[in-house]
Amino acid sequence: MSTVFSRTGLDNLEKRHRVNLLNSLSGYKSANLLGSINSQDQTNLALMSSVFHIGANPPILGLLFRPHSVPRHSLENILETGVFTLNVVTQDMHAQAHQTTARYPQEQSEFIATGLEIEYSPVLKAPYVAQSPIKTGLRLVETQTLAVNDTVLVIAEIIEIRVDDGLISEDGQLDMNAAQAVAITGLDEYHTAATLGRLAYPKP
Amino acid sequence: MSTVFSRTGLDNLEKRHRVNLLNSLSGYKSANLLGSINSQDQTNLALMSSVFHIGANPPILGLLFRPHSVPRHSLENILETGVFTLNVVTQDMHAQAHQTTARYPQEQSEFIATGLEIEYSPVLKAPYVAQSPIKTGLRLVETQTLAVNDTVLVIAEIIEIRVDDGLISEDGQLDMNAAQAVAITGLDEYHTAATLGRLAYPKP
Repeated sequence: MSTVFSRTGLDNLEKRHRVNLLNSLSGYKSANLLGSINSQDQTNLALMSSVFHIGANPPILGLLFRPHSVPRHSLENILETGVFTLNVVTQDMHAQAHQTTARYPQEQSEFIATGLEIEYSPVLKAPYVAQSPIKTGLRLVETQTLAVNDTVLVIAEIIEIRVDDGLISEDGQLDMNAAQAVAITGLDEYHTAATLGRLAYPKP
Repeated sequence: MSTVFSRTGLDNLEKRHRVNLLNSLSGYKSANLLGSINSQDQTNLALMSSVFHIGANPPILGLLFRPHSVPRHSLENILETGVFTLNVVTQDMHAQAHQTTARYPQEQSEFIATGLEIEYSPVLKAPYVAQSPIKTGLRLVETQTLAVNDTVLVIAEIIEIRVDDGLISEDGQLDMNAAQAVAITGLDEYHTAATLGRLAYPKP
């Protein structure tokens, strides 16, 4: 047996119920901490579950920001400095990563509030999270506001990757299980994962 | 100890190594089968790992297509009929879902090739995957080609959701673990997940 939601049925759901259903509908999402800094050298750390691969050559990632429903310090910092970092969230740090979603004032760094440590690179001004085993440094390419609901799409090119030893397989694949990376569903549920293995490129 | 890849280092990696590294970098991705149909009633099924949440009110999802590196039957069908379905991939069907990435000719339906069954809805012409426990029907809102690498962004609104019993929690959250949904890393690695629990909305 199953439940069928029509569009009218979805629109009439109690707000929190609708938000949870629709945020969890797309399935497992990656968990990354976005590190940024403004021109006054105030650092910021924000949990992102909307990072996605756009291309490998040139190496490009995309991410989405909701402009009105969350504080925009990270987006403002990216627009101001043109750079930011993405840091894979592990099981050990997932509670600290979740804590960054609290509404801290701009002058309070989530690095200090959560105890996560800064690691700097000579390549970019934005801070990495030292505890993260897989860190990516990025430079803003463009932003665009989606007409459908004013969500902001950020497109950025990768300028550096830092990976702890033992996490890269011979053919380049990162081992997210060995990294103890977590996945997110909805707004607040965290998961560990176990591999079912890799499948060969299929033939018809 | 860690490995640092500069942008030049990334660009100089052997192609397959670079593709695997960069496709796995963004972390866990959801696995959905996209069901579509053309105006000659030929059905198509394609594995998508680039589905993401754009908004809950109105209910909007986004997904990315690589126009040149994969067959575009699904995208052509969406443009032709304006509708498609997304069907959560489970552990039991992940090998069949992977098989849909083989280069079948347009006249051969991946439903028949893989043995996955069609379920139709009165709400839209596109086919659902009967075996999937969480199915979403969508109507195209807009497409745009990203200047950075000609990737095609598809934005669509949800017009129906079908969920098997026992998978919706009291507050609306879908239980992806109970659904036995799989996550993907890179191009070909599948994972099961286990929840670490849900965390409360944090205060500073």
